[in-house]
Amino acid sequence: MDQHELRELGQRLRVDAVRASGAAGSGHPTSSMSAADLMAVLLAHHLRCDFEAPSNPCNDHLIFSKGHASPLLYAMYAAAGAISDAELLTFRSLGSRLEGHPTPRLPWVDVATGSLGQGLPVGIGMALAGKRLDQLPYRVYVLCGDSEMAEGAIWEAAEHAGFEGLDNLTVVVDVNRLGQRGPTRHGWDTGAYARRLGAFGWHTIEIDGHDVAAIDAAYREALGTRGRPTAIIARTEKGHGVSAVADKEGMHGKPLPDTEEAVAELGGRRDLTVETRHPVAEHCARPLDHGPVTLPRYEVGDEVATRDAYGEALAAVGSAYRAVVALDGEVSDSTRTKIFAKEHPERFFEFYIAEQQLVAAAVGMQARGWTPFAATFAAFLTRAYDFIRMAAVSRADLNLVGSHAGVAIGKDGPSQMGLEDLAAFRAVHGSTVLYPCDANQTARLVAGMAAATRSDRGVRYLRTSRGETPVIYGPDEEFPIGGSRVLRASDRDEVTLIGAGVTVHEALEAADRLDAAGISARVIDLYSVKPVDAGTLREAADATGRLVTVEDHWPEGGLGDAVAEAFCDGGPVPRMSRLAVRNMPASATPRQQLEAARIDAGAIVAAARELVGAAAQA
Amino acid sequence: MDQHELRELGQRLRVDAVRASGAAGSGHPTSSMSAADLMAVLLAHHLRCDFEAPSNPCNDHLIFSKGHASPLLYAMYAAAGAISDAELLTFRSLGSRLEGHPTPRLPWVDVATGSLGQGLPVGIGMALAGKRLDQLPYRVYVLCGDSEMAEGAIWEAAEHAGFEGLDNLTVVVDVNRLGQRGPTRHGWDTGAYARRLGAFGWHTIEIDGHDVAAIDAAYREALGTRGRPTAIIARTEKGHGVSAVADKEGMHGKPLPDTEEAVAELGGRRDLTVETRHPVAEHCARPLDHGPVTLPRYEVGDEVATRDAYGEALAAVGSAYRAVVALDGEVSDSTRTKIFAKEHPERFFEFYIAEQQLVAAAVGMQARGWTPFAATFAAFLTRAYDFIRMAAVSRADLNLVGSHAGVAIGKDGPSQMGLEDLAAFRAVHGSTVLYPCDANQTARLVAGMAAATRSDRGVRYLRTSRGETPVIYGPDEEFPIGGSRVLRASDRDEVTLIGAGVTVHEALEAADRLDAAGISARVIDLYSVKPVDAGTLREAADATGRLVTVEDHWPEGGLGDAVAEAFCDGGPVPRMSRLAVRNMPASATPRQQLEAARIDAGAIVAAARELVGAAAQA
Repeated sequence: MDQHELRELGQRLRVDAVRASGAAGSGHPTSSMSAADLMAVLLAHHLRCDFEAPSNPCNDHLIFSKGHASPLLYAMYAAAGAISDAELLTFRSLGSRLEGHPTPRLPWVDVATGSLGQGLPVGIGMALAGKRLDQLPYRVYVLCGDSEMAEGAIWEAAEHAGFEGLDNLTVVVDVNRLGQRGPTRHGWDTGAYARRLGAFGWHTIEIDGHDVAAIDAAYREALGTRGRPTAIIARTEKGHGVSAVADKEGMHGKPLPDTEEAVAELGGRRDLTVETRHPVAEHCARPLDHGPVTLPRYEVGDEVATRDAYGEALAAVGSAYRAVVALDGEVSDSTRTKIFAKEHPERFFEFYIAEQQLVAAAVGMQARGWTPFAATFAAFLTRAYDFIRMAAVSRADLNLVGSHAGVAIGKDGPSQMGLEDLAAFRAVHGSTVLYPCDANQTARLVAGMAAATRSDRGVRYLRTSRGETPVIYGPDEEFPIGGSRVLRASDRDEVTLIGAGVTVHEALEAADRLDAAGISARVIDLYSVKPVDAGTLREAADATGRLVTVEDHWPEGGLGDAVAEAFCDGGPVPRMSRLAVRNMPASATPRQQLEAARIDAGAIVAAARELVGAAAQA
Repeated sequence: MDQHELRELGQRLRVDAVRASGAAGSGHPTSSMSAADLMAVLLAHHLRCDFEAPSNPCNDHLIFSKGHASPLLYAMYAAAGAISDAELLTFRSLGSRLEGHPTPRLPWVDVATGSLGQGLPVGIGMALAGKRLDQLPYRVYVLCGDSEMAEGAIWEAAEHAGFEGLDNLTVVVDVNRLGQRGPTRHGWDTGAYARRLGAFGWHTIEIDGHDVAAIDAAYREALGTRGRPTAIIARTEKGHGVSAVADKEGMHGKPLPDTEEAVAELGGRRDLTVETRHPVAEHCARPLDHGPVTLPRYEVGDEVATRDAYGEALAAVGSAYRAVVALDGEVSDSTRTKIFAKEHPERFFEFYIAEQQLVAAAVGMQARGWTPFAATFAAFLTRAYDFIRMAAVSRADLNLVGSHAGVAIGKDGPSQMGLEDLAAFRAVHGSTVLYPCDANQTARLVAGMAAATRSDRGVRYLRTSRGETPVIYGPDEEFPIGGSRVLRASDRDEVTLIGAGVTVHEALEAADRLDAAGISARVIDLYSVKPVDAGTLREAADATGRLVTVEDHWPEGGLGDAVAEAFCDGGPVPRMSRLAVRNMPASATPRQQLEAARIDAGAIVAAARELVGAAAQA
C-alpha cells in the first residue's frame, strides 16, 4: 500500500472501532484511535498471518497488551476479511466472540488480555518458544499502552527480553498521554520510555505514531535489528481524528458522543481491505506424540520429599513427552526443577526471581502448544496470582508447581510458607489442585498432569513439600485426578479423618492412637483437592457421620472448604470439625510447627474424640 | 569511628551472623556477610535511631528487602545493644523473636520481608509518609539483594520513587553476584543496575561494598542529594571474609561448614559496640484522634452504586479522621476514590497502574501509623496478592477496597471481573471481608473500617459493585463487622436464602416469588463474609434446615465456603445448595450476566424449590 492507502486504512480502523463501540454503547474507541495508524501499517505491510489458517505454526503473533483497545483489534480482523461487518457490530453483546477485552474464543487471539501489563510478558514466552522450542521464524508483536508501562510486570519482562536478546519481538508503545483518569506519569515524553527500555538492553525507535512512513520504517528497522528486542515508541493522540474527543480528558472507556458525526469526520466508511502477507509454510518441530513414561520408583517405607519426587518425575516425563518444558524462578535447587534442567537443558528456562514473568512465559508457551511446568515456592506463586487468574480467561493449559507448602517447612518462617495457595488455586476457574503425600503418588500425579494436557485443558496446580515424608504407596498404584484414597476403613468406623500431603501421615498416626483408645477411624488421603472425590466423601459421611479435616493451610479456602463443598448438593451433611493453621506461625522445627498449629496427630485425636463425644451426647 | 573500627564492626557483624546461623543450624550467613560492611557504616555513622525508643517518630527506618539476610540485621541489633548475645543465639528457634525472616515482632522492624522485591515498594510508602504526611526528616534505608532486582515490583517502585523525587530514600544494592542457585543475570556488572536506576531518575553511586571509606562517602553523597532517590550499588562478595564460602556457588541459605573455624578466620568475636545517632526529637504531626463522622445519607428506594457510597463515605470519614489517607491505582474515577481526592488532596496518593506499589505503599504508611484506604478493581488486587499475604505477616493494619465485583459489571468481560477476590481475601490471616449490598450499609462499613483501625489490627477488605442497587437500609441502621442482617423471617420458613452484595437483591426477589408459590423463605444479608455471623446462620439452620447460598463469585472460597465453615463446629449441619458463577462469563449486560451465571432470582427460586422438594422426599 502507498502512504495514502495506509492512512486510509488507519481511518477505516478508526471508523470501525467507533462504530463497534457505538453499537455496543460501551468500549474504548479513543484508546483504539490512537493506535490505528500503528496497526494499519503492521497489518498491511508486516504482519505475516494467514487469517484463514490461524493454527499455521508460522503465523506471526499479535498481542494487544492494552486489551481494552479491542475495537481496534476487531476492526483489523474486519479489514483483513476475517470477520464480517455484521459480526463487528455484535461487539460486547451476549454470545458474541467479540468480548470487551480479547479472549482466545477468537482463533487469532493467543491469550486473553485486559489486565494491563500482561501482554508483554506473555509475548516473551511466545518469542522464547519461537527461538528455542519451535525454532520457527515467526515474530511476536505486542501493542502496549503508555499507562501500563507503570506495571512492574512490564519491566520484569523488559529485563528478561533484553537479557535473552529476543530480536523476534517488537513492542509498540502507544504513547497517547492519557490514562483512564488523567495524564500518565510521562505524558508525551517518549524519551522517558526510550531511556528506560534502552537501559534494559532494548533497541528503541521514537516516532510520530500518526506518520505512516515513519511507522513503516520503524517496523523495517525492527526486522533488521539483531540480538535485541525492539520497542517502537510512538507519540500518538488519544481519540485521534475526531475533534470532539481528540486528546481530551474524560473520554476514556466510553463510546463517542455522536457516532455518526465521528464517522463523518473520519471520512465515512471505507471498503478498503487488506490481504495480509502469508507466512512461508515451514515444518513445525513441536512433537505432540509421546513415548511411554518410565517414572521413578520409590520403596515403601523410605523417606522422600515430594519435591524430590517432582523433580525426578518431571525429568522422566520430559523424556517421554518432548513437548514438556520446565520453567524456574531461580529456585530450581529448592523445587528440584534442577533435575529436569540437567537432563533436558534445551527445554529448561530460567526466569530468575520474577514470578510474574515465570507464569506469563508458561502461558505464552502453552499458546504455542508446548506443555509447561513452572515451579517456585507455593508462597511466591501468589506474586503471579493475577496472571494465573488471567490464564483461566485465556483457557490456558498449564502446570504450576508450588513447593515448600505450609508450616511444615519449619524454620524459615511464614514469609516462605505456602498457606493460602490451595484457596487461591481452588478459586481459579476450571483449575485442578493436587496435593500428594508421598513420592510415588507425586510421580503419578506429575505424569497425570502431563497426560491431561490438551485433553482436559486448564490450570493444574501441584503442591509439594519441603521435608521428607514416608513412602506409603507402591510405585504401581494409580492416582487419577479427581480421586482420593481410603487408607483405613472398617464397618465400625465412627469418624473419618481427611488429610492431604503432610497431614495424611498425621491422620494415620491419629487413627492408630484412636484405635488404641477403642475408636475406629476411617482415613482418607484427599490428594485431589479439586476436583474433589465427592463420592468417596459421601460414602464416608454416610458410614461414619462425622468428618475431621486437617490441613497445613489457613482454615479458609483449602481442604476443609473443599470437603464442605462436596456436601452442598442438598443431601444430608455430616458433622464436621476442621483443623488448620489458625495462628501466624514463626520459626520452629517442622515437628514443632505441626504441633503449634494444632494439625498434628495429637490435635487430630483430640478433635476426633470431641466430635465422637459431642455426637454421642447430642 | 575510624576506618579500622568500621572494618572491625563489619567483622563483628559477620561473626555474629555466622554464629547465629550456626546455632540455628540454618539461615543465610553468606548473604549477610556480603552486606556487613555496608550495614556497619550505616549503623555507626548514618542511621539515626534510638533503639530504646523504637516508636520515636523521628527515627530513621531500615528495611531489609533481602529479608533472608536477617542474621545481619539481628547482628546489627546486637552490636547496638538492642538485643543480647543470648537472644541472638535463639535465632530461628521456637518462641524466638528472631525469625528466619524479619517480622514486626521486633520493635525495630517496620514490616515483614522475605518475599523478595517488597521492601523497596514498602519503603517508598514510608518515604512518602515522611515527606507528605508526617513531614518529618527521617530517612528510609532499604537493603536490596541483586537477585531481587529481577522482580518487577522493584522497577514499579523505582519508577514511583523517581517520579516522586524521594530524596529521603536511600537504597543499598548488595551486588554479591550469586543468587540462590547460581549467578544472577548481571553478575558484578554494577553498571547494569546503575544504568537502569539512572534511567528511572535515580541518583546512583557505584562502589566497592567492602571499602568502608567509599561506603561512608556514598551515604554522605546520598544525604546531600536533593530531588532524587539515591541508589548505592555496591560490588560485594557473598560469604566475604571466610575462604570456605567466599564467592562460592552452592553456599546459599545454609550455615557455614565450620562455624568455629569461620569465626576464627574472621578474627574472633569482638566486643566493639555501637552507639547510634539519635534523632532530633520533633513534634509528630500525625493526628490520631478524630471527630464525629457525618456519613452521607441515602434514601431508601433510591438506586445507588456501592462504589459511589464508598467514595462519598471515605471523603466523610477522611474529614473526621485526619489519619485517613486514600491511595489510587489510576482508577479513582471508577472506584470513586476521586471524591476523597477532591476533598482531601493532601492525603490522596496516585500510584498509576501499579497495584503492587499501591498496596505496598499502604503497608508502608500504616507502619507510620496512618490509616490507608487503597482501592482499585477487585480483579486487579490479585496483582498484589503476595503483598497482601505479606501484609498479614507484617501485622499490617490496612483497608483495601475492590470495586467492579463479579459478573454484575456487565460488558467489560471476565478480565475486569473480581471473581476470586473473596477467596483470596478470606485466606489472608486475620483478615476482614465485607461485601455490602446498599449505599447506607457501605457507608457504615467504611466508617467501621476506619474505627477498627488500631483497635483491631488486620487487613480489611471491602468489595464494592459497579452498578446501581436499590437502597434497602435506612441511613441510621448499624452494621457491625462480623454481623449479618435477617431481611425476611417467619416461623414458617422452610429455607434460608443467603446472599451478599448484588445477590441480596436477587434473594429478596426470589423470596417474594417463593412466597407467592407458598414457600416461606428466610433471607440473610451476609455482608460480613469474614468474620461470619455463625450465630445467625446457626439459628437459621435450626429453624429452616436448608440453606441456599448465592454469590457473584466462583464457587470456591467465597460466600458458600464461608457459610459452610460456620457449621464446622461439630454440631448438626443443614442441607445446603450453593449458587455461584460456574462458567467463564463473556460480555453481556449485567442482567444477562446474572441470569447466565444462574445467580439471579430465578435460579435461587429453582434451587430453593429443589432443596425443599428434595428434603420433602428424603
